Amino acid sequence: MGGSIDRALVARPLSATSLRLSELLTRLHGRLDKNAVVTGPDVGDAYCADATDERGVRPAVLFRPRDTASVSAILSVCDALDQPIVVQGGRTGLAGAARPMAGEVALSLERMNAIEPVNEDAGTVIAHAGATLQAVQEVADINGFMFGVDIGARGTSTIGGNIATNAGGIRVLRYGMYRAQVLGLEAVMADGSVLTSLKGLSKNNSGFDLNQIFIGSEGTLGVVTRACMRLHPKPQSLANAFCALPSLGAAITLLRRLRQRLGPSLSAFEVIFPAVYAGVLKRTAAPPPVPAGAGMYALIEMQGQDEAGDEDRFAAALMECYEEGIVSDVAVSRSLRDYHAIWNLRDAASEFIFSMDHVAGFDVSLPISAMQRFLDRATAKIAHVDPAASIYIFGHLGDGNLHFLVRTHHYDRVADATFSCVASEGGSISAEHGIGLEKKKWLPLVRSPAEMAAMRRLKSAFDPNNILNPGRVFDMEPTAPGERA
Amino acid sequence: MGGSIDRALVARPLSATSLRLSELLTRLHGRLDKNAVVTGPDVGDAYCADATDERGVRPAVLFRPRDTASVSAILSVCDALDQPIVVQGGRTGLAGAARPMAGEVALSLERMNAIEPVNEDAGTVIAHAGATLQAVQEVADINGFMFGVDIGARGTSTIGGNIATNAGGIRVLRYGMYRAQVLGLEAVMADGSVLTSLKGLSKNNSGFDLNQIFIGSEGTLGVVTRACMRLHPKPQSLANAFCALPSLGAAITLLRRLRQRLGPSLSAFEVIFPAVYAGVLKRTAAPPPVPAGAGMYALIEMQGQDEAGDEDRFAAALMECYEEGIVSDVAVSRSLRDYHAIWNLRDAASEFIFSMDHVAGFDVSLPISAMQRFLDRATAKIAHVDPAASIYIFGHLGDGNLHFLVRTHHYDRVADATFSCVASEGGSISAEHGIGLEKKKWLPLVRSPAEMAAMRRLKSAFDPNNILNPGRVFDMEPTAPGERA
Repeated sequence: MGGSIDRALVARPLSATSLRLSELLTRLHGRLDKNAVVTGPDVGDAYCADATDERGVRPAVLFRPRDTASVSAILSVCDALDQPIVVQGGRTGLAGAARPMAGEVALSLERMNAIEPVNEDAGTVIAHAGATLQAVQEVADINGFMFGVDIGARGTSTIGGNIATNAGGIRVLRYGMYRAQVLGLEAVMADGSVLTSLKGLSKNNSGFDLNQIFIGSEGTLGVVTRACMRLHPKPQSLANAFCALPSLGAAITLLRRLRQRLGPSLSAFEVIFPAVYAGVLKRTAAPPPVPAGAGMYALIEMQGQDEAGDEDRFAAALMECYEEGIVSDVAVSRSLRDYHAIWNLRDAASEFIFSMDHVAGFDVSLPISAMQRFLDRATAKIAHVDPAASIYIFGHLGDGNLHFLVRTHHYDRVADATFSCVASEGGSISAEHGIGLEKKKWLPLVRSPAEMAAMRRLKSAFDPNNILNPGRVFDMEPTAPGERA
Repeated sequence: MGGSIDRALVARPLSATSLRLSELLTRLHGRLDKNAVVTGPDVGDAYCADATDERGVRPAVLFRPRDTASVSAILSVCDALDQPIVVQGGRTGLAGAARPMAGEVALSLERMNAIEPVNEDAGTVIAHAGATLQAVQEVADINGFMFGVDIGARGTSTIGGNIATNAGGIRVLRYGMYRAQVLGLEAVMADGSVLTSLKGLSKNNSGFDLNQIFIGSEGTLGVVTRACMRLHPKPQSLANAFCALPSLGAAITLLRRLRQRLGPSLSAFEVIFPAVYAGVLKRTAAPPPVPAGAGMYALIEMQGQDEAGDEDRFAAALMECYEEGIVSDVAVSRSLRDYHAIWNLRDAASEFIFSMDHVAGFDVSLPISAMQRFLDRATAKIAHVDPAASIYIFGHLGDGNLHFLVRTHHYDRVADATFSCVASEGGSISAEHGIGLEKKKWLPLVRSPAEMAAMRRLKSAFDPNNILNPGRVFDMEPTAPGERA
């Protein structure tokens, strides 16, 4: 709490940092509830890192505000004192944005986890930033709706963090990224001013849509405190299938065919490359849906509204592709048990990867037409920089998004090789995980000097004292060659 | 052309404005092609106005660049000289954003109307800013795809203008606003720097998504020169229906039921209020699909991928609603001729409105649960300020968007009444037409002082000399009470 902490800090030798922290707590004294401030060794280990391997610094102060007014108070005082802040949701990020750096105080939205009643007429829900994705999914489900995004970290990751990173996941093909779910936000700017846009209107061209600026900005432009999100009608039919195919090219043909045949009912299209499928089969006791030995595997899901006919149409579309030789083998789910067994293979792919040490994970996306060329070039380049490296690939082919994983002891060299191939094929070095601290070194590979300059302009306009997640995504001082205008 | 114009201008008495124009043309001399500059009386009448009734000033100079480099040159020189610019697409806007004001030069993107070859693997197309919406729709169609947005001005309105206003239209329910179609943009900033983001990736979290900033900013933050847009699989089935219902409440119930039953196949849900339906029937020779006398009319469209079964399911869902008394009468299209005849009624609604004089058009959106209350309050308030006023309503109920039209000789009083009711019911004063010059007086009714300040910060960051569509959307100096921080 404010008072006692002030004295503890003041009793120590007075560095500039501790003086500033003391002043910070003094100014906030009486403006926050008693559970909103944790200091020194009371700040738990969990707050020192995100889901990357690297640990951060233990923040001297952790703020756990209970409401938007408290967030506003914290930010306005930090801004006045040039106190940098690391913003934390569920800390499941894989890019280091929520990992505290020296001199930063932490701001966790974990206590702001309410979910307001579903608006059934509009098909919308307002969640507070600290609510988990799973809690929102469950509230939607109970009210006869579906939430459009699903990711592995659903039980821990929060709405605020999901929005800050524009999370994607397995059903982007059907429902879009997080950006497509957000109808409006409440966000606190660095100076403490609160922007509230929670009307939930699907058409609103009354001035700039400021919400868009905060989505995917990784906590560098403002702190999301609430979000009004779109819900979808709950599907009345659900089926999936697991296919073996001769090649990536065949998977791309299958994707295009199924988009045409199933339209928006095609809700997921995942690929698993042979080396990952081999690892998956070693980890699962269940009999494999299709035998190993193919050139590519695909997991396909359909969600529809025609309970009577959808599953047959889904199976018929796949059988047609089998007869044409696009797929070499296919297992279609015929029960909810089958359905879950097939999705379990996808989860087993993630678990297989996490079971290995020294795996460098690259979350890239590519134009589908350039994907094979990227794979050929990256594989050759990586073999050159680390002949001992082995490559494991799976991902969301429907979105051009591959999780490209390399077991290597030479992270930087392999990253340089991978990202330079991504860039030369017109891809993205981060499809869904964001840039954070981990990838910022490579950002100028895929963003032009003019884009880097525009991003800095935006950051300066919204956070002139650079207090919010400073050094994430990019540094304010240009570092790459050609970036100085 | 540069040289001769300079002399013409210099020969006249040298006002500050003409000196600046002379300098502008001198600096651009040799940097643009010969068709890129039109001056004085050669600037046609078409460039003096948009689709509002009010005419603007004839611009002393009209730029018609043929490529992005030319746009960049024009903007950088204008920026250096503090020369304000009005940006023009198809000039079909209804808010005055493209209407020239005194002292402005005009920048028309009309010559940049190319459409690049469709990327069939990705399902994307890159259009240049001056291409018409209809041209893009046709290119999509020829290549086996569908473009997701349709609006009445399709033959004249351009991609650049559509993006600048985040156009909506009749299928937002299914495909979203323009924002949802845009995968990336090329835009020129006020200082002439070019941001190019045309990779067409559906997942790309590599730094801030700057594209979002330009969409819906009405030309105030940059000039869109090209756009990479998502295409959708062409529907394999298509049907529509025209219903009579007892009330708006019944229409809302029907909407919710059909969303649940048809999911994403529900592609349009339009309402026509009785006074408009009466006008429509007077204008059409064809027998009405349902007789007049009901409390509400709805036009519903379905697009699906199951050619064999969709139409029957669509008809069955509507029949179920008829049996339950949600709809009192329904005509379902059974041929393409029926289908077009039903859409013609919607077009006739627009024509009926345009056939009247002194119609004040308000394009508002409301939370669906507040819509009836808005109508009751606005009707009462308008009757109070103008007892002679008559009200005509139709619109996109699926998006909460009503075109609320009032025949009145007292525009300002009626607008005040309408917009204050919109604001108090949590609605938007412009659902899809934008703010431009026409609505900016009322913008602070629906945007807080903090939001107005954040919009100005963004404008200052991207266009520090306020040269791009100045005075559109908002003025840089706060005018409303409470807006001065």
